[in-house]
Amino acid sequence: MTDLDQYLDQHDRRIHDELFDLLRIPSVSARSEHAADVRRTAEWLRDSLAKIGFDASIHPTSGHPIVLGEWRGAPGAPTILIYGHYDVQPAEPLELWESPPFEPTIRNGRIYARGATDDKGQLFLHVKALEAHLAVRGKLPVNVIVLAEGEEEVGSENLERFVEENAKRLAASAVVISDSSMFAPGQPSIVSSLRGLAYFQINVTGPTVDLHSGSYGGAVVNPATALARIIASFHDENGHIAIPGFYDTVRDWSDSAREAIRRLPFDEGVFQRQTGAPALGGEKGYSTLERIWTRPTCEVNGLLSGYTGEGAKTVLPSKAMAKVSCRLVPDQQPEEIERLMRAHVTRVAPKGVTVTVENLSGGRPWRAELDGPLFDAARRSLKAAFGREPVIVGEGGSIPVVGDFQRILGTPVLLMGFGLPGENAHAPNEWISDENFVKGAKAVASFWDELAAN
Amino acid sequence: MTDLDQYLDQHDRRIHDELFDLLRIPSVSARSEHAADVRRTAEWLRDSLAKIGFDASIHPTSGHPIVLGEWRGAPGAPTILIYGHYDVQPAEPLELWESPPFEPTIRNGRIYARGATDDKGQLFLHVKALEAHLAVRGKLPVNVIVLAEGEEEVGSENLERFVEENAKRLAASAVVISDSSMFAPGQPSIVSSLRGLAYFQINVTGPTVDLHSGSYGGAVVNPATALARIIASFHDENGHIAIPGFYDTVRDWSDSAREAIRRLPFDEGVFQRQTGAPALGGEKGYSTLERIWTRPTCEVNGLLSGYTGEGAKTVLPSKAMAKVSCRLVPDQQPEEIERLMRAHVTRVAPKGVTVTVENLSGGRPWRAELDGPLFDAARRSLKAAFGREPVIVGEGGSIPVVGDFQRILGTPVLLMGFGLPGENAHAPNEWISDENFVKGAKAVASFWDELAAN
Repeated sequence: MTDLDQYLDQHDRRIHDELFDLLRIPSVSARSEHAADVRRTAEWLRDSLAKIGFDASIHPTSGHPIVLGEWRGAPGAPTILIYGHYDVQPAEPLELWESPPFEPTIRNGRIYARGATDDKGQLFLHVKALEAHLAVRGKLPVNVIVLAEGEEEVGSENLERFVEENAKRLAASAVVISDSSMFAPGQPSIVSSLRGLAYFQINVTGPTVDLHSGSYGGAVVNPATALARIIASFHDENGHIAIPGFYDTVRDWSDSAREAIRRLPFDEGVFQRQTGAPALGGEKGYSTLERIWTRPTCEVNGLLSGYTGEGAKTVLPSKAMAKVSCRLVPDQQPEEIERLMRAHVTRVAPKGVTVTVENLSGGRPWRAELDGPLFDAARRSLKAAFGREPVIVGEGGSIPVVGDFQRILGTPVLLMGFGLPGENAHAPNEWISDENFVKGAKAVASFWDELAAN
Repeated sequence: MTDLDQYLDQHDRRIHDELFDLLRIPSVSARSEHAADVRRTAEWLRDSLAKIGFDASIHPTSGHPIVLGEWRGAPGAPTILIYGHYDVQPAEPLELWESPPFEPTIRNGRIYARGATDDKGQLFLHVKALEAHLAVRGKLPVNVIVLAEGEEEVGSENLERFVEENAKRLAASAVVISDSSMFAPGQPSIVSSLRGLAYFQINVTGPTVDLHSGSYGGAVVNPATALARIIASFHDENGHIAIPGFYDTVRDWSDSAREAIRRLPFDEGVFQRQTGAPALGGEKGYSTLERIWTRPTCEVNGLLSGYTGEGAKTVLPSKAMAKVSCRLVPDQQPEEIERLMRAHVTRVAPKGVTVTVENLSGGRPWRAELDGPLFDAARRSLKAAFGREPVIVGEGGSIPVVGDFQRILGTPVLLMGFGLPGENAHAPNEWISDENFVKGAKAVASFWDELAAN
């Protein structure tokens, strides 16, 4: 056990209290009524960084602010940038939470709260690892920048520009992010790929108001039916996406990469039971992990039309709305997918309704090069904390800024996350394993030493 | 001008005040929180019938109560049953009403309120026509039963049984109903057909909770996509319903009946502009009036799934729901359509989701025989009140009990309604033409004389 591990153990109670304070603030970036909470979270984080000895500042954007923490006490040593986000997904539907989403609760070794794993918990364990170095040794072996945004859950609208405009100040030799999951409990993991995102809202409008489905039904095109037919046109019978051109820029994975995925000890039955779905399904010709890590999707995220209350109301709806998002894989680009989506929807939309496609957010897919001292240091520190060699995994989710960092700062990005499968990120009853939170902080603390030892 | 017309004119102000009192009670039968309002409306109507000299009573059912008014002071003369309903559709979406739905308001010769035309206004003008006879002459030329239910908008669940169990008490030589529209302003109309109804809720369930669309998307069947594909399977490219067996029992209209519809002065452009839809559409090979009056439909009435709030939330929804209702034409039966719908949905539902079909309500289609003294009396009284021969029209909506009355009581049913196209029944800003309300009462008052004169 290192001096840093000891420090973290000694301060375990206070560190948890602080984490819980952070989780209590409902920093829901998608909801304008929570704007003040998001701001309050930024201030909390700034103060938390200042307290451990960082120069901490808040940077307004046209949306939610960016928090920056800087420690540059190691002249001549490399600078590493830690990225995370302090905003969270909306908590609805609230009635499905077993404990309130913004009242953190420990049950069975899990910390339940919105943002526990995505990403407040994982961001905060970095802050505590840095604190351990500064408290125990008075310094860090490298220069460190902490960059935390409040718009990750709404597409990181302002981050790319901020990084571009502050590229000099943010200059670093690597970016480290913990906003992903380990492959299994006790199995540390490094993420080698992320899917991108192209998120749309499709609005179908027919008659000016809801009509009586008896007096008008059959003679007025039904917007909900039109929307259903548009959505049905997104896939063929085999689960392939049927939007023309959609796969044109997909870079196939090598046979050896597919083989490496197949070798991972993945139990489809466990995965299925965890979801609660009666069966798994998806694109023909691919395994579950391949579907999630290596293939693009076109998923409906929400539907709304007409009467949705109790009982029977015989309306022919005026409007129908779908939220639809595509997960992208290299080398698909969100701009190109938007163009294809618009062209397809326009082509299949029936006469008698007006259809518009709004672009709500987007992000680029990403794949890592897994060589060099950055990844070696990560492997060693993860093995030290968890007692096991990390595995290389994919990630079906998106961290839109990863590609941006790599492009703008010209640095490799390391994704080592401490979530776990089934952690309900974006769903009711989100949690992080308390053990992973503690070991994650220790792994990250040792990571700075390993990096300096290279 | 008859003595009855004079009476109605003299009491016009009070009659309107009473109508407004009736329209103010939010008797929304579909919503359990309005059960007391529905009950209060029944009591209001009972008192209103008692006041004009009827024996009036309230009959509880397992749902909302039935109001019965009886005047049997013409021994030896025939007995006529007037049917109407005092419940109304839900008023949502409230923000689209220009004046509150339960605060009746006159604008441009129209009385705006939920229930103004469907059916409180049309039911109440009958009560006032009866009042005119009893006030002016002390008696009616025939025996009259008024039967008003509070469940028409939720499928008349208890009426059929009530009529069956009270068939002797309700014995009549004809049933008269005003719950339909005139073909055009100033053009009185007799409705010769009604569509039936088979109303379903389709529930699709996949994973237990909403999942992260990145971490699971592509490998878990999306319930919203599955629902969209089910809905898309309801129609073929030409707007024909593609549920196997759906048309098997449809009785074709005669060439002469189709020709009569074609002769009506119907302007598709006006109809389209009234709906506000960019174009009309529907089943290939049929005109707009044929589509509404003579052809069955399968319409989506509502859709709900996943995240429907502001912005982007990347969930793979746990559930998706559609309200879907079929309008039926003779000789389709709701039980048979339910069987076909269940079989079809089961056949097309993908693996990976659980699909259930709930039957929310149903009603039989109907076509009238248009001969005999009942219809002759209606023609003469409508011509007297409106100065114009009535036309024979169809009606796309459903009055589920019409077929039941005909079957159980063995009597013809006369549908003479005083609504107008564009009256927004079942939609925001429902209205009845004030002129039609007044002339309707006069037509109905003269109808009793015409019937006795036969």
